Amino acid sequence: MATVEELKLRVRELENELIKCKQKQCAVEDAQNQELHRPKIDKMSAEVVDSNPYSRLMALKRMGIVDDYEKIRTFTVAVVGVGGVGSVTAEMLTRCGIGKLLLFDYDKVELANMNRLFFQPHQAGLSKVEAAEHTLRNINPDVSFETHNYNITTMENFAHFMERISHGGLEEGKPVDLLLSCVDNFEARMAINTACNELGQIWMESGVSENAVSGHIQLIIPGETACFACAPPLVVAANIDEKTLKREGVCAASLPTTMGVVAGILVQNVLKYLLKFGTVSYYLGYNAMQDFFPTMAMKANPTCNDRHCRRQQEEYKKKEAERPKVEVVQEEEEAVVHEDNDWGIELVSEVTDAELQAASGTVPDLPEGITVAYTIPAETAPCGDTVEETEQSLEDLMAQMRKL
Amino acid sequence: MATVEELKLRVRELENELIKCKQKQCAVEDAQNQELHRPKIDKMSAEVVDSNPYSRLMALKRMGIVDDYEKIRTFTVAVVGVGGVGSVTAEMLTRCGIGKLLLFDYDKVELANMNRLFFQPHQAGLSKVEAAEHTLRNINPDVSFETHNYNITTMENFAHFMERISHGGLEEGKPVDLLLSCVDNFEARMAINTACNELGQIWMESGVSENAVSGHIQLIIPGETACFACAPPLVVAANIDEKTLKREGVCAASLPTTMGVVAGILVQNVLKYLLKFGTVSYYLGYNAMQDFFPTMAMKANPTCNDRHCRRQQEEYKKKEAERPKVEVVQEEEEAVVHEDNDWGIELVSEVTDAELQAASGTVPDLPEGITVAYTIPAETAPCGDTVEETEQSLEDLMAQMRKL
Repeated sequence: MATVEELKLRVRELENELIKCKQKQCAVEDAQNQELHRPKIDKMSAEVVDSNPYSRLMALKRMGIVDDYEKIRTFTVAVVGVGGVGSVTAEMLTRCGIGKLLLFDYDKVELANMNRLFFQPHQAGLSKVEAAEHTLRNINPDVSFETHNYNITTMENFAHFMERISHGGLEEGKPVDLLLSCVDNFEARMAINTACNELGQIWMESGVSENAVSGHIQLIIPGETACFACAPPLVVAANIDEKTLKREGVCAASLPTTMGVVAGILVQNVLKYLLKFGTVSYYLGYNAMQDFFPTMAMKANPTCNDRHCRRQQEEYKKKEAERPKVEVVQEEEEAVVHEDNDWGIELVSEVTDAELQAASGTVPDLPEGITVAYTIPAETAPCGDTVEETEQSLEDLMAQMRKL
Repeated sequence: MATVEELKLRVRELENELIKCKQKQCAVEDAQNQELHRPKIDKMSAEVVDSNPYSRLMALKRMGIVDDYEKIRTFTVAVVGVGGVGSVTAEMLTRCGIGKLLLFDYDKVELANMNRLFFQPHQAGLSKVEAAEHTLRNINPDVSFETHNYNITTMENFAHFMERISHGGLEEGKPVDLLLSCVDNFEARMAINTACNELGQIWMESGVSENAVSGHIQLIIPGETACFACAPPLVVAANIDEKTLKREGVCAASLPTTMGVVAGILVQNVLKYLLKFGTVSYYLGYNAMQDFFPTMAMKANPTCNDRHCRRQQEEYKKKEAERPKVEVVQEEEEAVVHEDNDWGIELVSEVTDAELQAASGTVPDLPEGITVAYTIPAETAPCGDTVEETEQSLEDLMAQMRKL
């Protein structure tokens, strides 16, 4: 049997071991917590010191590019779809010091996403919005985040989505300043289009082709420019999203380069729009095979099937009629073009139809001047083998929209 | 005094506490280690499962874009400068599954870098190459990394830099396949140019203007296309790097958007060059204010001041002369243009000089057709106040090069 001395020795040993263990635990936790936060910053400073995360942004004023950079803190942007484009979009806005971000996605991070920027292997299994919020908060704790882990296309979620777009601004009750569509399927785009037409919410569309080598961004001002239902500049291949493709044992290709470029030109357009500098693009395409970047603008279609789009057009017409004719046109509106054909479409860039066609792959029967952002795989393409028929006419797409 | 029973109780208590502490410590460490690695993958698979990090890249073959995507694992790329463009460039290549990356930078991560993608606040204080390697290894353990935390422009480091470029390939002793310049100053660009001319190393240049709203990439094939000393398409404002500017209490502006786009078009060009698809761009500019992307190509200058450039030109001429005339010109070389003026420069894109000028800001007196990637701030610009005179003629730049 143990003596009192032996037991005392054992107690001392255990006490020492416990202290060491707790010390080590603290060190490990400290290392983790270190990752958590830099302190919040009340006011953006232009001071040029290594510790100032905003010095290079505030320098935009000194360089004569932006009048009041700090205004960025007053804006709220909703990002729908936090995948290859949406996650980088959210990171860029976070690093720029946007006021508030609303993130919507229902998907989980997978190792199969690792060929695109932002997510890391240890986040596999987490919801995309949860993983994104964690990373983004670490990067910039000055930004407010609101995340919604759901599919916006179901009835119930759509109502909640509409509510948050119209009330989730930096000051609760106010609408967001801008919505960005970074989704990968047709239904989600149509849901966003429907919501924005009803709310009169200005938004920007983005997309990357299934073959990973082209993409686009588009600014949509309800009532003024063509909405997604007016004349889809995106003909999405057979309405198939990543999940459907995966079930069939095939998947769309993707590249971190193309998605990074699309996120870059999207957020650049957002900064130009919100902070009022440069020329905001109505449509900017990116064809990576030829490094070709077509631009264009489209007016709203008076016979659009979305009644809210038609209502917004009426309101816009009334507002335009009431505006004194001598008033100087705002710089941002310079790029708006005038009717040139049945669709009110005019190319802004000096690009031939042949070039557009070459840049966009197989083109369905579309009015002259409209290009497709999504290339439709030819039936004989190896990838098309197990995918359901992709041939849809513009009429079919329109009919689908009507049903929505 | 404590009884044996009391001591035994205390021993049991301590033992339990110690077990709990160790369990917790393990959990905390596990959470950290989880971040460390996914297992290495021997062979890239095209299988469409959530756990395959290469499925979306291997799909490029099925989509008819790339013949043999897996070839990417055989290539080594050196990235010089791991800042706003270089870090994203390295991340894109890592996620694409490049064989080996060599990273060169002598700078430390600062909070002032947080307005650009990639680095995170908790990495402040670490060397950029060390922090980058840690993050990149987590993202893709299949890539080999070699990092050098030094300034390539000092005599001793330059010799070591040359040695690693010519021997640091995937198979030690072989040269790298491509070098990417992502540096922010004139000396470093000239050092890279000198090294590549001597070694006959093909490289790509990249740059972003000090006002953050324009950038460019350029492919340089020694002896064939213009080198950095032939006719600098980049007129770097007064040879000032970030550190110099910082000492003066001012700093260049930067945006995650512009840098993301430049990294994106750079790595896209790398992929097209290495994997042989699409058209490789010789020069691609990006003007964010107008969403304008000029392209051009420049032949080497026979009177270039760099003797290694002239030697490479002789060798190229000899090779060209020996080539049978009937041979089909390689697709990549289609964009090479023919002499059109004193500088052998011809614009590939249908862009007027006025447009080029508008896209590039203040243009110094340069031969027709050459644009500057770096806008030179006007003397009256608020930022110029504390910066030394930036007006330099092309002659001055040439003289500077000669001295190097």
